[in-house]
Amino acid sequence: MSFETLCYRDGALYLLDQRKLPGAQEMMRIETAAACADAIREMVVRGAPAIGCAAAYGLALGAREAARESSAAAQEAIFLRARETLHASRPTAVNLAWALERLSTLRAGLAAQQRPADEIAAHLLAEAHAVTAEDLAACKAIGAHGAPLVPEGKGILTHCNAGGLATAGYGTALGVIRAALGAGKKCDVYADETRPWLQGARLTAWELMQDGIPVTLLPDVAAPSLLASGKIGCVIVGADRIAANGDVANKVGTYGVALAAHAAGVPLFVAAPISTFDLRAADGRAIPIEQRAAHEVTHVGSVRTAAEGVSVFNPAFDVTPAALVSAIITERGVARAPYAETLRALAQSR
Amino acid sequence: MSFETLCYRDGALYLLDQRKLPGAQEMMRIETAAACADAIREMVVRGAPAIGCAAAYGLALGAREAARESSAAAQEAIFLRARETLHASRPTAVNLAWALERLSTLRAGLAAQQRPADEIAAHLLAEAHAVTAEDLAACKAIGAHGAPLVPEGKGILTHCNAGGLATAGYGTALGVIRAALGAGKKCDVYADETRPWLQGARLTAWELMQDGIPVTLLPDVAAPSLLASGKIGCVIVGADRIAANGDVANKVGTYGVALAAHAAGVPLFVAAPISTFDLRAADGRAIPIEQRAAHEVTHVGSVRTAAEGVSVFNPAFDVTPAALVSAIITERGVARAPYAETLRALAQSR
Repeated sequence: MSFETLCYRDGALYLLDQRKLPGAQEMMRIETAAACADAIREMVVRGAPAIGCAAAYGLALGAREAARESSAAAQEAIFLRARETLHASRPTAVNLAWALERLSTLRAGLAAQQRPADEIAAHLLAEAHAVTAEDLAACKAIGAHGAPLVPEGKGILTHCNAGGLATAGYGTALGVIRAALGAGKKCDVYADETRPWLQGARLTAWELMQDGIPVTLLPDVAAPSLLASGKIGCVIVGADRIAANGDVANKVGTYGVALAAHAAGVPLFVAAPISTFDLRAADGRAIPIEQRAAHEVTHVGSVRTAAEGVSVFNPAFDVTPAALVSAIITERGVARAPYAETLRALAQSR
Repeated sequence: MSFETLCYRDGALYLLDQRKLPGAQEMMRIETAAACADAIREMVVRGAPAIGCAAAYGLALGAREAARESSAAAQEAIFLRARETLHASRPTAVNLAWALERLSTLRAGLAAQQRPADEIAAHLLAEAHAVTAEDLAACKAIGAHGAPLVPEGKGILTHCNAGGLATAGYGTALGVIRAALGAGKKCDVYADETRPWLQGARLTAWELMQDGIPVTLLPDVAAPSLLASGKIGCVIVGADRIAANGDVANKVGTYGVALAAHAAGVPLFVAAPISTFDLRAADGRAIPIEQRAAHEVTHVGSVRTAAEGVSVFNPAFDVTPAALVSAIITERGVARAPYAETLRALAQSR
């Protein structure tokens, strides 16, 4: 691909600033855990798997900050504060908590062995590299598992951006699309623009066209009639968190697309790595849904588009009931209902 | 209300330029049928009933232009060209064709009586005034018929703008809301922003707040989860054309809201005057759906928000199947399924 979503070099994390796409392609240099948390909160980087990778690097930066202290107590305090700040940056994507947990467990083991703080920091950086490399490999495997499910010769509709920009690279939903087209399937790709942040218009369309894949963009409101038209063979989306029963939290609007796909008899596929599973959440009601600022809805850039004085309801995610999900495509294979059994089996396999 | 959507004075039609709301409240002066057709096409005025009123005035202006010619043949040619230009300005709202038909029938009768062209023009202007006055009265009656259907104490969700700005005044869907709140019902009003033209954000929110009615604005993508939350007691929308079987063409996105309302067990009410009925259309498949310019989706104002080079699917309307419509509220009463019978009965009553 012609861009890097995130990378680590010269002692810093670099994030492609997705707020500026498609107009400008700029990398933001991040040197502290707090700066990383800010970048996640402000959506410099977004997409559940990419947030997980960024948070892993952010916590590794926190470990490096901790190593500058001399006392073990101060090191511990700085590390824990970094972890908390990162954990609070966004609530819905479980990959964030998953990545922080993974690095914290590693650190706890090393600390118990009295390893020096700078050695611990180096191990955490290595673990962040591993999280990122595994995410890229997972996306490729998701693509390989998902490609056979894509109906030949019909359109594919996607919502938001579950692409290379939402992961360490290649993408989950867009990974399946890349793999299907790469295998020679002839499918037109349709992308919902995805208000209010316009991930579809700004990111998905840009990312696919960087790869020479033509895209037809539509307002979110047009997806139901597009689905009813018979042009679409399947819908493929990513996920921010998947509950034990198969309920899927994903970008707001996914539930509406799922209802319209169901009404049209079009399958809805969710493409996501196992790190997106939250099997402690019994169903979608246990998933916290982030509310974002009114400004995202009342303004475009600095231009006010809505009447002064309105209240705003701006949830970043919604929950699609498992009954509307035809299959969940992971790096370890494809799960179908009953998800309570198949998701647990996939999570435990290896 | 603190604004006029359209009015005729000093020998010209004045239209509130809805492209400039909510930032500026400016009236555009229209002196010819061609200028009126341009204003309808460019959405200076929009909303099926308001388009019908504007087209009636536009054709009256065309009759005045015709009266400046000396030969009956030239008068006829100019009038027919005015009618064709207005008819072609927008395809989906049937009120436009309905109003043109009404004035043309009047003109044909007067022309058969050899009435002078300037007298015919005066009659057509009087008929345009009648169309407009009847529309306002119809909206008030729709409000009175609809208000009892609104559940007390729950939210009301509307899509697009079916308000005073979409009619001669008071509104259809917003007329029901005004009447319900005026009758003392305590209901929160929620408005979908309605991409790509943002009628909800720019027009509905502005219009209701001019009346002191608080509004909560949401991205269209959030409507399904809002409906699933249980906060909404009913959805009320307008219509651009209603087929004989009760299928409803309305602003794109209405079908998606209807699916989500159905899934949540929330009734969907369509509020529209009889002039919106097209009983010659057997069902929604017979309704032409206007496709609008890509620019509406790829740009906000002059700022490009979508990746360069994308194709765009931008239908202005969609069709909601009659099975998802709980009731159709007209100025002559409320129709419920089976619509093939009830709509015809309402159309023939008087």
